[in-house]
Amino acid sequence: MNGCFITFEGGDGTGKSTQIKLLEDYLKAKGKDVITTKEPGGTEVGLEIRKLLVCGDKDKFDAVAEALLYFADRHIHLTKKIWPAMNEGKIVLSDRFADSTFAYQYWGYNKRVSKETLQSLYQISVGDFKPDLTIILDIDPEIGLERSFNKAKNMDVKELRFEGRELEFHHNLRKGFLEIAKEEPNRCVVLDADKSIDELHRDIVNVVNQRLGL
Amino acid sequence: MNGCFITFEGGDGTGKSTQIKLLEDYLKAKGKDVITTKEPGGTEVGLEIRKLLVCGDKDKFDAVAEALLYFADRHIHLTKKIWPAMNEGKIVLSDRFADSTFAYQYWGYNKRVSKETLQSLYQISVGDFKPDLTIILDIDPEIGLERSFNKAKNMDVKELRFEGRELEFHHNLRKGFLEIAKEEPNRCVVLDADKSIDELHRDIVNVVNQRLGL
Repeated sequence: MNGCFITFEGGDGTGKSTQIKLLEDYLKAKGKDVITTKEPGGTEVGLEIRKLLVCGDKDKFDAVAEALLYFADRHIHLTKKIWPAMNEGKIVLSDRFADSTFAYQYWGYNKRVSKETLQSLYQISVGDFKPDLTIILDIDPEIGLERSFNKAKNMDVKELRFEGRELEFHHNLRKGFLEIAKEEPNRCVVLDADKSIDELHRDIVNVVNQRLGL
Repeated sequence: MNGCFITFEGGDGTGKSTQIKLLEDYLKAKGKDVITTKEPGGTEVGLEIRKLLVCGDKDKFDAVAEALLYFADRHIHLTKKIWPAMNEGKIVLSDRFADSTFAYQYWGYNKRVSKETLQSLYQISVGDFKPDLTIILDIDPEIGLERSFNKAKNMDVKELRFEGRELEFHHNLRKGFLEIAKEEPNRCVVLDADKSIDELHRDIVNVVNQRLGL
């Protein structure tokens, strides 16, 4: 595969989708062949799995079931969309990937699913493949959740299964992303998301250029 | 858990659902507290997963994705329905359980998913739990598929994603169920399903009485 895979991670309301759109425009203006995607729900089948995951009561199933569904979605996403695009030399920008599952299921839920279980599911679903670069957008969860709720109110979004969890969950989540970045400094970069949209975009462009020379 | 868990396995058209209904009636007439269920789709969420699994094009995702989705359905089925019912002392009769995943994904697909992967998913989703008794209904796939197609034609059933596979797949599947029975003779009993409904019901009642003394 001669393409490139960049993932955006972080809690709700960190501005991932906005920043992905800006980076996509920037790279396209430079003549690059770029596609954007997201998890869960980067494929047609994945959208059905996404509905199960993000809608409805937060206790309709537990963290183990969630992990299995996320990795099913991810495996379909990789085999049907990400890998084929990379094989055509494309740059793939994804709103979330496997780090989110570790952050949510292991850290967010305070280790209700063991790291070994998640690593085993990663091996089954993803194998030895990893993103070329992961940009973690970091913000105080109270600010992020306020942004997320305002966005949902304005857009009449129903996907609030996770936002409905208590604040402690979101603090654990943030801690999780920062731990992941510490464990894999060559792949991950943490950026302060409590900045203006333009400032954060410039930070992202700098990182992408330094790390990947795109 | 003081209840009891009996699973029915076998290819399509072996008569599982008919025989489960007859056994349910028989046990209820003896005053037993019985529920019947099925996989995939034994729960409300599971029904959504079932739709993904059994409808649509047979190549919409691969065997690894299938295995992940089946075990997600199974984990929800166990935690939300089977274990709670067993805790109340009920007899649970299930149309398919984990053996089907091994038979379809490992044997049916000619080992496209490794047995180790499926065992690892079993451990994650089910743990050390096993059915008390598994009744494998065995029939020549050509007879079974003919029955299955006739049933579908009469009922206008759309769930033919698996029946559409080639005959070799169904022969592998049958071999898989027989291998499983050989590996676990204390749990599994193979019954000849090419008999009249009444004869097969009597065989099943005999097995249940001998093995479980219900």
